[in-house]
Amino acid sequence: MENAGVQTVSSQRLGKIEGVNPSQIRKDLSMFGSFGHRGFGYEVSQLKAHITEILGLNRKWSLVIIGAGQLSNVFINSGAFRKRNLRIRKIFDDTPELIGKKIKGISVSGMKNLEEEIDPETDNLAIIAVPPNRVQSVIDRLGKIGIKGALYFAARAVNAPEDMVVVNQDVSVELGTLTYHLKARINQGAG
Amino acid sequence: MENAGVQTVSSQRLGKIEGVNPSQIRKDLSMFGSFGHRGFGYEVSQLKAHITEILGLNRKWSLVIIGAGQLSNVFINSGAFRKRNLRIRKIFDDTPELIGKKIKGISVSGMKNLEEEIDPETDNLAIIAVPPNRVQSVIDRLGKIGIKGALYFAARAVNAPEDMVVVNQDVSVELGTLTYHLKARINQGAG
Repeated sequence: MENAGVQTVSSQRLGKIEGVNPSQIRKDLSMFGSFGHRGFGYEVSQLKAHITEILGLNRKWSLVIIGAGQLSNVFINSGAFRKRNLRIRKIFDDTPELIGKKIKGISVSGMKNLEEEIDPETDNLAIIAVPPNRVQSVIDRLGKIGIKGALYFAARAVNAPEDMVVVNQDVSVELGTLTYHLKARINQGAG
Repeated sequence: MENAGVQTVSSQRLGKIEGVNPSQIRKDLSMFGSFGHRGFGYEVSQLKAHITEILGLNRKWSLVIIGAGQLSNVFINSGAFRKRNLRIRKIFDDTPELIGKKIKGISVSGMKNLEEEIDPETDNLAIIAVPPNRVQSVIDRLGKIGIKGALYFAARAVNAPEDMVVVNQDVSVELGTLTYHLKARINQGAG
């Protein structure tokens, strides 16, 4: 909206975009302070600044990527990270042809150097893009050196230290959301 | 759990895995019927069957993928889809070298054949894996031919027909969840 030059936005409009009730939008945002104006809506640039701050994206974050496969390449090539103050500092992988090389300017190290080369003081987050059956062992290793946040991609639960925040994203989970919504319609349509 | 031979699971255990309150687990599941036993928990295979049915994954779904880039390759190579009764029927892309070829046994067609080759009677879902700035035009085309569900990957809102369910998944949104949780700790740590 900011790029499109939109200056203010109503909770009605935001609700429509997000697929939720306008009153839910107002309620949720009011949890973080009062920055809308009744009958006027939200000032777009102000709202963006507030949400950026709420999410902690007004500061720089350093992250490492574990696994240099196809999925990692999507992230490395995406402009979305830089735009959100997320800097990919290092990539770890076990492919001999990749170790010591750079991908888009980011150096690749071997998995065996994980503990040595990740600095939990600098590196806030890890993106774990290894096959599902290797996710747990990577989380174990990251947890031990004190990495506080990780995102992994697998429709399975993992164990992580109490003080580590771990979130997962799996496309088949989102597809389950779709099939949940669609099954009722299709059953109706077949009647 | 089923693979590991676990027969019953408590709401405590499920709550721990999902990072929510056990009472929330019980409340959420009870929305779909009563299939737990007080003081006993849930029978794993029964719970799995119930959830599969709730999500509509007890029937087969046919899906098409729009865009044959790196992200699509991740899905095409993943076993997760087959396991969930999701069959990728066709891929669409504009790369001349790919059109007419097969990727993992799935044939690739040109984008211009989208309307001709997608059958909304057969194809229930679409995965839209094109660059963010092309997502809206693909949704427009799919909506017009009557595709009822789509998943896309971009941190931007789109317009879709009223009767089309559209969900998005974007890694930078999940990273925002992480930074939201971590910023407080890091501020504390720095104090």
